[in-house]
Amino acid sequence: MTTEDDNTRHAAKMGKIKAARDRMMATKTAEKGLIIVHTGAGKGKSSAAFGMIFRCIAHGMRCGVVQFIKGGMSTGERDLITERFGDICAFHTMGEGFTWETQDKTRDTQLAKAAWEKAKELILDPENRMVLLDEINIALRYGYLDIAEVTDFLATRKPPLTHVVLTGRNAKPELIEIADLVTEMELVKHPFRAGVKAQKGVEF
Amino acid sequence: MTTEDDNTRHAAKMGKIKAARDRMMATKTAEKGLIIVHTGAGKGKSSAAFGMIFRCIAHGMRCGVVQFIKGGMSTGERDLITERFGDICAFHTMGEGFTWETQDKTRDTQLAKAAWEKAKELILDPENRMVLLDEINIALRYGYLDIAEVTDFLATRKPPLTHVVLTGRNAKPELIEIADLVTEMELVKHPFRAGVKAQKGVEF
Repeated sequence: MTTEDDNTRHAAKMGKIKAARDRMMATKTAEKGLIIVHTGAGKGKSSAAFGMIFRCIAHGMRCGVVQFIKGGMSTGERDLITERFGDICAFHTMGEGFTWETQDKTRDTQLAKAAWEKAKELILDPENRMVLLDEINIALRYGYLDIAEVTDFLATRKPPLTHVVLTGRNAKPELIEIADLVTEMELVKHPFRAGVKAQKGVEF
Repeated sequence: MTTEDDNTRHAAKMGKIKAARDRMMATKTAEKGLIIVHTGAGKGKSSAAFGMIFRCIAHGMRCGVVQFIKGGMSTGERDLITERFGDICAFHTMGEGFTWETQDKTRDTQLAKAAWEKAKELILDPENRMVLLDEINIALRYGYLDIAEVTDFLATRKPPLTHVVLTGRNAKPELIEIADLVTEMELVKHPFRAGVKAQKGVEF
């Protein structure tokens, strides 16, 4: 096959893909504030949410972050947002550490409830276009927060155009049910298995 | 069960998890520049990579981005990085658009090869601690780049402490094989199915 033939075939194939894509996209006209869930045992749940927060910042859209469990996003990320973009993105760290570090359910529950109050406040503020509830799934899993309260609030009180992103492993089925966009980060290969430690820039 | 009993049980359970985690982490001592792959049909591949780039920026680590296909990361993200963090993060957009937009294999191949040259230059620069090759998997899938050339370079020429992140659907098995950390973003639910259009802050 000559290069020219190959080019012609490629152009025809790509033309078909483009036409199909254009037809598909033409039917997508609604604008809607989404309930977005990042779950699964793989990496990237908080990083991808953090990437979306930066995407909002890049567009000049007001947004907010509540960290339910310290360590989901690193303190480096928090410092960068609060120091450079504090005018457009509110940042609240409510958890005091991973649950296996604290070992105190009463205190963890109090902290999770305080974080949820802050989350509701940010979501109800019509100026905010996206609110990230980082690692809230951990608080839900351990029963620090009531799943029905969270899903009821999101389903009935969230302003129609506000996006809410919820991260953490083991997302509750009730949350998946009301979500618009759910991604499961699946672990295919992890360097811890080869004795490599957590590293700056990658894990924190 | 009283609250006190519940707290005691919880503390014991969390104590066991912490001890197991501490033992596991103590064996992870190696520092290594990782080959990281984000693939799969779900969302978050580029966002999570972009989140890691911002994590590096937050730590003051020099880094670089090469976009193989325009549209993987939005122009908003590019502008934010180049305008605010251009001193610490190099940003190069080499693709001219999605392959189904251009429909010109010869030109796409030239652009992909130019992007790969820039990628090698950034990776070989020992000042860079992380280099993101955004949507390179698309260029590899369409044969614009030779997979053996890419894997050979990463396996033999990448400085030992430099992290390289490669994103895009349909990662080649040869790339998965040499990677240290692979996450498959799996699509669980997507709002396009409900007629919702791509929205600022979420998709771009």
